[in-house]
Amino acid sequence: MPISPQADLEITAFNWVPDFARGFVRDLRPRWACEEIGLDYSEKLISAVERPADHYQVQPWGQVPVLRDGDVTLFESGAILLHLGQKDRRLMPDDPQGRASATAWVFAALNSVEPMIFELGNVDIFSKDEEWAKLRRPGLIAFIRTRFARLSDALGDKPFLLGEFSVADIAMATVLREAVKAGIVAEFPNLAAYLDRCVGRPAFDRALAAQLAAFTEEPVAA
Amino acid sequence: MPISPQADLEITAFNWVPDFARGFVRDLRPRWACEEIGLDYSEKLISAVERPADHYQVQPWGQVPVLRDGDVTLFESGAILLHLGQKDRRLMPDDPQGRASATAWVFAALNSVEPMIFELGNVDIFSKDEEWAKLRRPGLIAFIRTRFARLSDALGDKPFLLGEFSVADIAMATVLREAVKAGIVAEFPNLAAYLDRCVGRPAFDRALAAQLAAFTEEPVAA
Repeated sequence: MPISPQADLEITAFNWVPDFARGFVRDLRPRWACEEIGLDYSEKLISAVERPADHYQVQPWGQVPVLRDGDVTLFESGAILLHLGQKDRRLMPDDPQGRASATAWVFAALNSVEPMIFELGNVDIFSKDEEWAKLRRPGLIAFIRTRFARLSDALGDKPFLLGEFSVADIAMATVLREAVKAGIVAEFPNLAAYLDRCVGRPAFDRALAAQLAAFTEEPVAA
Repeated sequence: MPISPQADLEITAFNWVPDFARGFVRDLRPRWACEEIGLDYSEKLISAVERPADHYQVQPWGQVPVLRDGDVTLFESGAILLHLGQKDRRLMPDDPQGRASATAWVFAALNSVEPMIFELGNVDIFSKDEEWAKLRRPGLIAFIRTRFARLSDALGDKPFLLGEFSVADIAMATVLREAVKAGIVAEFPNLAAYLDRCVGRPAFDRALAAQLAAFTEEPVAA
């Protein structure tokens, strides 16, 4: 189990989130990367309901995760995945094309797929009783479907985006997972199988368990 | 002028786009980075109305830009910015914290700010006559305003996101630019000044001119 209070690496996460967000907070991404390579990390748990003022110094949006790696601190889960990826070939190839492709696919997941999934979260969760959300939904689903069709073509019959598992799959699988409930992933058999393959990895299970174990039952201040 | 047919670097861009998109297509980002450091590149211009089938092999969404750098090919403008940034300290600091911060801010621009601006584009351009777009707009503007307030705090009185200019500013300025018309940038004087400072750079002008020069008057097939 890579959680170790003495580790050089520290991941900031929330000590409580509402039920619908449990298992989906983005510290899952660096936890998963660490679990894949057995890299120890410590947790810094903060309150989501009363975010510490100094947290905005390291995370301008007040979100998680933040990674502290010795003297280096960084935010944005995509940047953290690339940072961790550079430590180990099991997370990122070390040849120039492999590294470029892994970087491209992490951005693809977070800039070309996740934005529509964010909006689906707005439509299906945060604004679900609003008139605009009901009217918006069909067009949004159609757009996501088009994007997933391209992703399905690009993946083809490869087991992972680069062939071998990499941080690109951590980014993409955590994004696709957010669209499962709406039923769109299941429309593309190779994407559904890909997602099963990713979240079927023991490292994913351990990362998910670690995130869930950090939550208290009721919200607490930091 | 860095456009040179013999260059090792090749940027793929469109040979025509509709008026509203002119000056906003994302090949502007790598063009700008190249102009900042006088790095020669050649252009590969393709049709946006009849996208070449083999283009999807290198750009799964059929979009631009794609960068070819010798033997390495990559897509996603964020990944391309990081790739180019690693070539020159004028684009990215070469100490570990500086590099981590630049990477974090490129992701911040593209994953934490641009998604709402995408949606504003949907609301104000692509779906402007739809009922949902009218109903959605006030909440979306309020959300963007909150995010811009955080960005404004993080920038403070620094001239650029990392202090010195970097690829993070290319990413963030090209995102902010898309929100100018809606009037939200102007509500934050330091962001408005920051954007002016970024797009006031001669390299930006040259990049913009190069993108515009590549467009034919009427759409043409590849």
